[in-house]
Amino acid sequence: MIAGIIGAAGYAGAELVRLLTGHPEVDALAPASVNHGGERIEDMYLNFWGQISAPLESPEAVIERADVIFTALPSGVGEPYAKAALERGISCIDLSADFRFGEDEAAFSAWYGKPYVFPELRKRSVYGLPELNRAKLKALAAEGPVIIGNPGCYPTGASLGAFPALARGLAGAGVIIVDSASGVTGGGREPQRSFHYPECADTMAPYKVGAHRHTPEISRNFQAMAALNGQSAAPALIFTPHLAPMNRGILSTIYIPLAEPRQAGRNVDSKGGSVRPPSKEINDRAAEFREIYADFYRKEPFVPVLPSGVVAATGRVRCSNFCHISVHLDPGGTTLIVVSALDNMVKGAAGQAVQNMNILFGFDERTGLGQIPASF
Amino acid sequence: MIAGIIGAAGYAGAELVRLLTGHPEVDALAPASVNHGGERIEDMYLNFWGQISAPLESPEAVIERADVIFTALPSGVGEPYAKAALERGISCIDLSADFRFGEDEAAFSAWYGKPYVFPELRKRSVYGLPELNRAKLKALAAEGPVIIGNPGCYPTGASLGAFPALARGLAGAGVIIVDSASGVTGGGREPQRSFHYPECADTMAPYKVGAHRHTPEISRNFQAMAALNGQSAAPALIFTPHLAPMNRGILSTIYIPLAEPRQAGRNVDSKGGSVRPPSKEINDRAAEFREIYADFYRKEPFVPVLPSGVVAATGRVRCSNFCHISVHLDPGGTTLIVVSALDNMVKGAAGQAVQNMNILFGFDERTGLGQIPASF
Amino acid sequence: MIAGIIGAAGYAGAELVRLLTGHPEVDALAPASVNHGGERIEDMYLNFWGQISAPLESPEAVIERADVIFTALPSGVGEPYAKAALERGISCIDLSADFRFGEDEAAFSAWYGKPYVFPELRKRSVYGLPELNRAKLKALAAEGPVIIGNPGCYPTGASLGAFPALARGLAGAGVIIVDSASGVTGGGREPQRSFHYPECADTMAPYKVGAHRHTPEISRNFQAMAALNGQSAAPALIFTPHLAPMNRGILSTIYIPLAEPRQAGRNVDSKGGSVRPPSKEINDRAAEFREIYADFYRKEPFVPVLPSGVVAATGRVRCSNFCHISVHLDPGGTTLIVVSALDNMVKGAAGQAVQNMNILFGFDERTGLGQIPASF
Amino acid sequence: MIAGIIGAAGYAGAELVRLLTGHPEVDALAPASVNHGGERIEDMYLNFWGQISAPLESPEAVIERADVIFTALPSGVGEPYAKAALERGISCIDLSADFRFGEDEAAFSAWYGKPYVFPELRKRSVYGLPELNRAKLKALAAEGPVIIGNPGCYPTGASLGAFPALARGLAGAGVIIVDSASGVTGGGREPQRSFHYPECADTMAPYKVGAHRHTPEISRNFQAMAALNGQSAAPALIFTPHLAPMNRGILSTIYIPLAEPRQAGRNVDSKGGSVRPPSKEINDRAAEFREIYADFYRKEPFVPVLPSGVVAATGRVRCSNFCHISVHLDPGGTTLIVVSALDNMVKGAAGQAVQNMNILFGFDERTGLGQIPASF
Repeated sequence: MIAGIIGAAGYAGAELVRLLTGHPEVDALAPASVNHGGERIEDMYLNFWGQISAPLESPEAVIERADVIFTALPSGVGEPYAKAALERGISCIDLSADFRFGEDEAAFSAWYGKPYVFPELRKRSVYGLPELNRAKLKALAAEGPVIIGNPGCYPTGASLGAFPALARGLAGAGVIIVDSASGVTGGGREPQRSFHYPECADTMAPYKVGAHRHTPEISRNFQAMAALNGQSAAPALIFTPHLAPMNRGILSTIYIPLAEPRQAGRNVDSKGGSVRPPSKEINDRAAEFREIYADFYRKEPFVPVLPSGVVAATGRVRCSNFCHISVHLDPGGTTLIVVSALDNMVKGAAGQAVQNMNILFGFDERTGLGQIPASF
Repeated sequence: MIAGIIGAAGYAGAELVRLLTGHPEVDALAPASVNHGGERIEDMYLNFWGQISAPLESPEAVIERADVIFTALPSGVGEPYAKAALERGISCIDLSADFRFGEDEAAFSAWYGKPYVFPELRKRSVYGLPELNRAKLKALAAEGPVIIGNPGCYPTGASLGAFPALARGLAGAGVIIVDSASGVTGGGREPQRSFHYPECADTMAPYKVGAHRHTPEISRNFQAMAALNGQSAAPALIFTPHLAPMNRGILSTIYIPLAEPRQAGRNVDSKGGSVRPPSKEINDRAAEFREIYADFYRKEPFVPVLPSGVVAATGRVRCSNFCHISVHLDPGGTTLIVVSALDNMVKGAAGQAVQNMNILFGFDERTGLGQIPASF
Repeated sequence: MIAGIIGAAGYAGAELVRLLTGHPEVDALAPASVNHGGERIEDMYLNFWGQISAPLESPEAVIERADVIFTALPSGVGEPYAKAALERGISCIDLSADFRFGEDEAAFSAWYGKPYVFPELRKRSVYGLPELNRAKLKALAAEGPVIIGNPGCYPTGASLGAFPALARGLAGAGVIIVDSASGVTGGGREPQRSFHYPECADTMAPYKVGAHRHTPEISRNFQAMAALNGQSAAPALIFTPHLAPMNRGILSTIYIPLAEPRQAGRNVDSKGGSVRPPSKEINDRAAEFREIYADFYRKEPFVPVLPSGVVAATGRVRCSNFCHISVHLDPGGTTLIVVSALDNMVKGAAGQAVQNMNILFGFDERTGLGQIPASF
Repeated sequence: MIAGIIGAAGYAGAELVRLLTGHPEVDALAPASVNHGGERIEDMYLNFWGQISAPLESPEAVIERADVIFTALPSGVGEPYAKAALERGISCIDLSADFRFGEDEAAFSAWYGKPYVFPELRKRSVYGLPELNRAKLKALAAEGPVIIGNPGCYPTGASLGAFPALARGLAGAGVIIVDSASGVTGGGREPQRSFHYPECADTMAPYKVGAHRHTPEISRNFQAMAALNGQSAAPALIFTPHLAPMNRGILSTIYIPLAEPRQAGRNVDSKGGSVRPPSKEINDRAAEFREIYADFYRKEPFVPVLPSGVVAATGRVRCSNFCHISVHLDPGGTTLIVVSALDNMVKGAAGQAVQNMNILFGFDERTGLGQIPASF
């Protein structure tokens, strides 16, 4: 089959090129670019030099002959290509936010500041987070070509970290806090001051506190997973992204208030301060939660739940499609603390898109994504 | 005056050497080392080469002639030296945890796994966080030589970030979550796998989730500031430290449940999800909180509260004694989000120790600490 | 086939585990450890968690059932295992320096400070730099099991950068200077002060100036390539390694005095200073040299010679077996400047070992090594 | 006195602001900007927040009232301001290349692609590398206001590393190779792809091989130092800059062919390969060269020559005006290898400018520059 990549000159596009080149079911890549037509991708990305010789074509040319289309474009730009793909009878996997909100255009436009271009396309679109929506995706695809709204990077990590708690009724009232740190590739290929090396090396800072566009996507996923499992509404969400001095990776530390906090023997003194280290009881209970998580993800190929006592780290999933999860409990027993780590460009973008392609075509989901992460 | 530094070969000691060398009231340094006696600090730290020629003496020799003693040693090791200093009639500023818990030996030993060596020393000790305890420190010092328990790095950033909310009654019931990221110098000078370059470069991970020894110190500070201002008990605490791929700095993102969350027009839908960007009302209220913070710290020389709309970043306080603070509000209006950034080796250790020395001797607190942070 | 890895707990061993897991001709890994027997590699390297479950066995157990042995051990430790492998009739690929000097024990012991353990093993050993010794390796292997001395990381990059100039008679009298910078993984897994994060982050420095053990290996390779192509002796060598603040990669900038420096119109003034930018003539001549290089490596699967006008960079070959080369000319026309970039853990260690295994067994050399490097 | 800084919004300007703020002879800063007039520098550089409140004025306004002018502008832009300063009777320290070539406009325009704007200004200009030109600077300044051409970052490190060898007749015929690595701040404040975090983090590469504009400046300095000491012409120069993944610092490894290479007992075999580790004789001779260097710089306040056996590293001079130098000898005895390390923004730019100001006004050269570098 031929995989068309529109927006191949951008970072997510380049990562799609890398992953699809090694995909055994993909016979040929057809990379395209809106702005760099005629250039060769191996000249733009010298890491590909001598390995990938396809010139960047026009989007139209690629849609004409591909068997599946990936659109890796800024929000709002890809809709016409997704439409054209559907009209040609092929599916489109879109890496922007355009198809993540389905028919809820109000939510999209509140955060992205514009309306849908072709609202009717949402009848054939589905949100492509496999661990949430695999069945829905398959069902829709059974009826014909679809548009898959590939999830955002933060939402993938936040959702995978919170899903078992939401699905199994562990989360109680209150607010789930998602505190995340991302590598700088999340900002894309175009230079800007925030991502200028001297401005972001050797420093940590949050950004867009309370105002990041991925907030509503995370919140929707929380509600969806709770609903799917017959749970009442999920807690409210606070999401704070940070920029960390690294290239790849998103680490999310997720604080989930427990529906049944441990009452007896709280590890706090009379004044409310947490003054004792975690007790054996707390550690045992943390291990139980870890089992619930491990059980929830037992059949998922890309979501290993780490053993008790160790922590998820972004470096250990670098360049892979894995999302590592570690499960902890605050010593006061009130709050589940879950840590998820993924590669923002793979499970958070291009890898998940390939996983969606695999689902779409009935391949094993691991096809072309089986590579083990390097140790360092 | 002569400043004695016991433990000058360690990272905090080396930073004390740097800062005290430029201190106009310090005539001479007397560096000492328990393990490296006889070596020269300029040979161990080549950055000092040709600038600092004092050999490392024995702790005893230094106590004998210094006017003030700094002990920068592992917990439990420095007590005899602090005792000897007091007996010689000079004060000691201790950078370990040994004197941070005052008479509450139970809290200390629960987390540090050992009893006090000389419990009676606490009658002359005081916790040295100037923004909390300046008056107490001065009062005790007026009666004679003292031991100052210099605060931990995380507790300094967490406390300064939460203090105004606690003092002004902004914080309500619930849990304050402190999510922090530290540079690797926090791990000290001795090589170990966790701080081996290939293990911590280009990766983010939490560590000691729910079990870090700075937890009770932060919690105590929260209670103390609330009490000092006639507030009822502070909320409980959850503290999660992370290791970030940078040398210096601690960024703390602090989630404080508001006593009076905004009721009308919550930015959430009926299902509890936060689905709208921050409203003008939210931004205005955030600006009000920012003013409360700015007002609280108006006279503090080292705690600038940044203007609304920007965020604190560790890179902007590197090598300085400043602790930057930015104030935010979650779009749902329930939770104050405060970000503090400091240099873990300066305001989080050696700089704060010098600040304490300045208070002790009646110098302007900024003496020797006035350097402006570099831009990159 | 079963691939035995002795020293699987070290960094090179972990990288062998990663690469061989994806090798289509390898049916099973048999990892072994001298010090960590009984532990599981997925517990030591959490990046493997849930993916690689083999426990670390004893070296003896692994030699007993493997079809090929990799030894990734400190110099001097692996000889008995190599011997045992030969005696069992299987080949051994050794990643230490023990078999890089063949029968020249004097050179080895001058730099490594010890004699060979079993000198007679060198009758069945060959230096495994494919681009130099492929034919020799094949010839020796045709007679029975062999020991392959897998090249050092610096020697691989230095040699590949200089080979075409040496083979084609471009290099004249004088000294070839190899100025290299390595990532910190080159120092191995054991923590030590030189590789402690705060000591090597955000700084550059040379080390072992004029005294690095890879010097004689590079020098020997230069002579061997010159001799192989009927050239007179290669120039002398000066080699300076540096440590750079990055995890992986070796960049070598190689200065080769030309046998026929451009005489007419030298771009220097009467005082010998190089005072003019490169002329068109210089740029043209540089392009000619680039063609000679590209021609030399045309059939090599892992040595792309980049187009004129761009430079080799370590980040573009990260985690891959490629060695990128760029060719330049000093504006004075006297010195060829060649830059090579490789991943010290792949083409500089484990990947080259797998390449050698492929040659040994008659597989396509690219088998299991075809992955395209990521763009960032 | 009032120090005017034109171009205060750029990186070198921001560093001037930092250094001059702590300068005891400077009563007030007058920062100006061509493009950011009216903005406040503390808003642009939040590290200054609350510490520096001067708004950015127009260049003209600043020239009107300052006692000295610093111009930190792109090449060609600052000449009118330098002219205006002279006309007002005050001196100007220019951080661009405009005044580094004196009356040799041909050299300037060959590399910078444009003519001088006001050629006649060179009658009152001097190249401001204090270790070379201090006397000349003083002499010219004695006659009236001057323009100081502040040296480039690479030329400073390369020159200081080679000067003693050139002045003492150690360098012989052949080519001096300067292989340098710079931190990314060298590229300035404006975002561009080469300095985009994901493009330069965790990677090393050379750039502008053989074509960097600092080449003629280095070459001229070599000739000047040789001439000043009655030596015949210096060797030709090859200069290769690299970009390293760090913020600050330039490390230069300098290969100087010796006029009298050690003949007897060369550490090379008959084929020319360097096959033995450095002998005691070599190490002794290296120590002698180190003494010559130490002697040469004995009175220089900013150029410590490190003891034998250790190496210069950029991290140890970070944010300081020091240039560390270490001296080595290749084991073959033919080539002196000198390593220099400085902070490109301080001794390589703003710090050296302040040093020049100190000379100009007759202050101790260390005034305002005495800060000891931090250890990490």
